Amino acid sequence: MNLERVMDYIQANEQSFVDQLVDFLKIPSISAQAKHRPDLEKAADFLVKEFDGLGLAVEKIETDGHPLVYAETGQDPSRPTLLVYGHYDVQPVDPLELWKNPPFEPKVANGVIYARGSSDDKGQLYAHIKALEAYLRTDTALPVNVKFIIEGEEECGGHNVYTYTEQNADKLACDAVIISDTTMFDENTPAICYSLKGLCFMEIRVKGPAQDLHSGSFGGTVQNPGNAVATIVAKLKDSRGRVKIPGFYDDVLSLDSSERAAFASLKYSDRILRRETGAPRAWGEAGYTSLERMWARPTCDVNGIWGGYSGEGAKTIIPATAGAKVSMRLVPNQKPAAIAAAFEKYVRRIAPKGVEVEVLNLHNADPVLVPRDSAMMQAGLRALEKGFQRKPVFIREGGSIPIVGTFQQALQAPVLLLGLGLSTDNIHSPNEKFHVANFVNGIRTAAHLLVEATK
Amino acid sequence: MNLERVMDYIQANEQSFVDQLVDFLKIPSISAQAKHRPDLEKAADFLVKEFDGLGLAVEKIETDGHPLVYAETGQDPSRPTLLVYGHYDVQPVDPLELWKNPPFEPKVANGVIYARGSSDDKGQLYAHIKALEAYLRTDTALPVNVKFIIEGEEECGGHNVYTYTEQNADKLACDAVIISDTTMFDENTPAICYSLKGLCFMEIRVKGPAQDLHSGSFGGTVQNPGNAVATIVAKLKDSRGRVKIPGFYDDVLSLDSSERAAFASLKYSDRILRRETGAPRAWGEAGYTSLERMWARPTCDVNGIWGGYSGEGAKTIIPATAGAKVSMRLVPNQKPAAIAAAFEKYVRRIAPKGVEVEVLNLHNADPVLVPRDSAMMQAGLRALEKGFQRKPVFIREGGSIPIVGTFQQALQAPVLLLGLGLSTDNIHSPNEKFHVANFVNGIRTAAHLLVEATK
Repeated sequence: MNLERVMDYIQANEQSFVDQLVDFLKIPSISAQAKHRPDLEKAADFLVKEFDGLGLAVEKIETDGHPLVYAETGQDPSRPTLLVYGHYDVQPVDPLELWKNPPFEPKVANGVIYARGSSDDKGQLYAHIKALEAYLRTDTALPVNVKFIIEGEEECGGHNVYTYTEQNADKLACDAVIISDTTMFDENTPAICYSLKGLCFMEIRVKGPAQDLHSGSFGGTVQNPGNAVATIVAKLKDSRGRVKIPGFYDDVLSLDSSERAAFASLKYSDRILRRETGAPRAWGEAGYTSLERMWARPTCDVNGIWGGYSGEGAKTIIPATAGAKVSMRLVPNQKPAAIAAAFEKYVRRIAPKGVEVEVLNLHNADPVLVPRDSAMMQAGLRALEKGFQRKPVFIREGGSIPIVGTFQQALQAPVLLLGLGLSTDNIHSPNEKFHVANFVNGIRTAAHLLVEATK
Repeated sequence: MNLERVMDYIQANEQSFVDQLVDFLKIPSISAQAKHRPDLEKAADFLVKEFDGLGLAVEKIETDGHPLVYAETGQDPSRPTLLVYGHYDVQPVDPLELWKNPPFEPKVANGVIYARGSSDDKGQLYAHIKALEAYLRTDTALPVNVKFIIEGEEECGGHNVYTYTEQNADKLACDAVIISDTTMFDENTPAICYSLKGLCFMEIRVKGPAQDLHSGSFGGTVQNPGNAVATIVAKLKDSRGRVKIPGFYDDVLSLDSSERAAFASLKYSDRILRRETGAPRAWGEAGYTSLERMWARPTCDVNGIWGGYSGEGAKTIIPATAGAKVSMRLVPNQKPAAIAAAFEKYVRRIAPKGVEVEVLNLHNADPVLVPRDSAMMQAGLRALEKGFQRKPVFIREGGSIPIVGTFQQALQAPVLLLGLGLSTDNIHSPNEKFHVANFVNGIRTAAHLLVEATK
C-alpha cells in the first residue's frame, strides 16, 4: 500500500498540527482537583469536535467522574480493528513557581512544546488522531478499522474507563490496543515497552493532640505526630534500599540472565541518570543496576510528607496531625491488594505509641508484562522504524498504566505500548515538554501502523 | 498605702479595658511574615498613643526589624524602679481553617476573649498598662518608678531588643524586671515561674534531584528527599523518648529530690494533660512524670516537616526537596550554641547517601533559673495573692523567653515572671484565648505589685 499522499499531508501540515495541539494544551484539565471539573468537560469537548470534524461516529459518555470520549471509523468486519487509548486529563502543576512558562500557556521554542500535558498524554494521544486525519483528508482507504477510547481520570485514579471497558467489551472489541503514553528509550531510539510497573498508592494519617500545641508548654509530654510520621516512613526501607514490609518481595518475578544482558546492552549509565534527574548520585536497592531498579525492581517512595509549619521563620508548635503519601511501584507478579494489606499491617505495627494512625489505600494498578514475540509487537517495531527512520528497541518502564491490565483481561487483545515521549519530558513535574520531532514522527508511525497491523 | 480608689477604678472600667484590648488584638501583628510589616508598625503606634495618653515619656525606636516602644513615668531616684517588658507581636495563624472565629476579629463570650495574641502577649502586657492607668487617673501617687520596654520580634527570633538592652543598660536600669508572658499553674492557682526552658531552633533542608521526578520513571534509582528527611528525623529520638544526639544531656541540671517532691505536690496528672492537649495519652522520656518532662527535661520536637505533594488525591512524584523544622527546648545548664553544633554534626552523620543536607540554626535562647528566696519574688507572691484572692505557687515552664537571660546579665536585676495566662489558652495554636477574669485580676495584681515592691 502506498502511503505517499498520507506522508505528504503530514509533512505539509506539521505547523498546523502543532498549533492545534497547543489549543488542546491550553485547557487546564487537572483531574485530581475538583475546581477544574469544567476544564475536564472542555477537554472532552475538544476531542468530540475533533472526531466529529473527521466524520467519525463519536460519543461523549458522562460518568460519575469525568466523561469518556468514544469514537470509531466505519467498521468493516473484513479488516482488523485497532483500539487507540489515551487520556485528556493532566497532573497538578504545583510547585507553580518553578515553571519557567505558565503550564497552560504553551510555548513552542527550538523544536520543543512546553506545557502541562504536552507529553503526558495529550501530545502522544493527538498523534494518533492526526495520523487518521491524514488518511481521511487524502481519501486514502483505511486498511484497518479504528476505535478510540479516551478518558479523563488517568491521573487521579478514577475507575470509569475500567467499568466501561468491562461492561462494553463487545463495543470495544479489537485485534490490538494501541497506547502511546510511555517513552522512547532515548532521543535517538524509539521503543516498544513490554512491561509496566503496577502501583499501590497509600496515605498515612497520624493524629496526636486535638490541635497544634505550643512546643514549650507541652513539649516532651505527648507524642509528636511529626516525629511519629518520620519514624514510620523511616522504617519502610533499610539503608541498602530494601523495602522492610514483611512479604513485600514474595511474588517478585526475578530478572533472568538474558533480560539482564539485554538491559546491559542498552546505552544507559549512572552519568545519564544524574543528567536526567539532577540528583547528586544514583542510589537504590543494593545488587542492581540503575536500569534494573528503574524497570524491574519494586519501589517504595514518599510522594508527599507533611505536618506543622513549613512557612517562613520559626513557629514553635507540636502539630496536631501529620501525614505522608507513599507509593509502591510493583513488578510482575506482585498484587496491589496484598501489598496494600501488608503495608497497612506493618505501619500499624511500627507506629509509635501515643498517636492514632489511619492508613488509606488511594490507588492501585496491576503490573503488566506483554509477550515480545507476537505479530502485533513485530508490526509495532516496523511502524516505529519507518516513522522515526531509526532502529527501535524493546524496553520496560517504571510507570504504571492501570488500564493496560483491564484491556488485556476484558478485551483479550494484546496491548502495544508505543511511547513517543522522553524520560526527560518532565511529566508530573514543572516545565513538562514534548519534542515537535517526536510528535511528527509519532504521527508518521501511527500512520504506518495502520498498514503494518494488517501484515 | 490605700489602694481603694485604684481598685475601684479598675472595677468600674472592666468593660472599657476589655474593649480597648479588643482594639489592640484586631491588629494582625504577625512578626514572622514580611507582609505584615505595616501591622507591626500599627501595633507599636497603638502602644505609643496609649502611653502618650497617660502622660508618660514615650519613644518609638526604629530598628532594622520591627520597632521597640519605650515609655517611662517621672523618675524619682528615692523610689525603686520596675521595668515592665512585653511584646506586641503575635504568632502566625495557620491552619486558619481550624479557627472557630477569625483570629483578628476578637470575640468576647462567656468571660473569654478569643483572638490571636490575647494571651500571648498583648492581653498580659496590657494588664500592666491598665494598672498604671488606674493610679494615674485616680491621682494616686506612684510608689515606684515604672519603665516599659516592649518589642515586636519575640515570636520571630529578632534580636533588636537584646542589642538595645545591652547598649542602653543605664536607661533601662531597674530594681526588678516584671514580665507577664507565662501561665498560672491552673485556673484557680496563680503562680510565679522561676525557671524557663531555653531553645535551639533548627531547620534541616534536604535536596535531591534538580526537580520533582515522576516516581514511576525514576523511582528506586535516586534517593528520595522525603524518605531521607524522615530517616534523619526518626534518628533524633529513641523509642523511649531519649534524644540520641551525642552530648545532648551532658550539661543538664538534674532535678533534686526536693524539687521532684514539690512538683509531685501540685495537682497535675496525665488525665489533666490529656484533657488539656486532647492527645490520646501522655508520652515522653522514660523515668519522668509529665510535669517533670514539661518543666525540667529537654525536648526535641518536629515543628514542621514537608516535602512533595500534600494536596487532594494522588500525585506520583519524587520530591526534589524536603525539610523539617526541629526545636529543642533546653534546661539549665544546656548551652544553645553547643546543642546547635551537636545537632548539625549528628544530622550530617546520619543523613542518607544520595542527597545534600543543609542545617540552619534559626533561633536560640538560654534557659533561665531565678532564685526563689529574693525579696522581689516574695513581693510578687503577695501581689498575686491580693490580686487573685488565691494562694500562689512557684512553678517552672517549658516555654522560652530569651530576653530574660539578657535582662539578668545586662541589667543585673532579678526577673519576676508573673504569668496571667493558662496553659489551655491555645497560644501558638488556633483559637487562642484569654480569660477576662485573669486579665482583670492581672490588672489588680500589677497595681498591688507597685506597692509590694517597696516593702
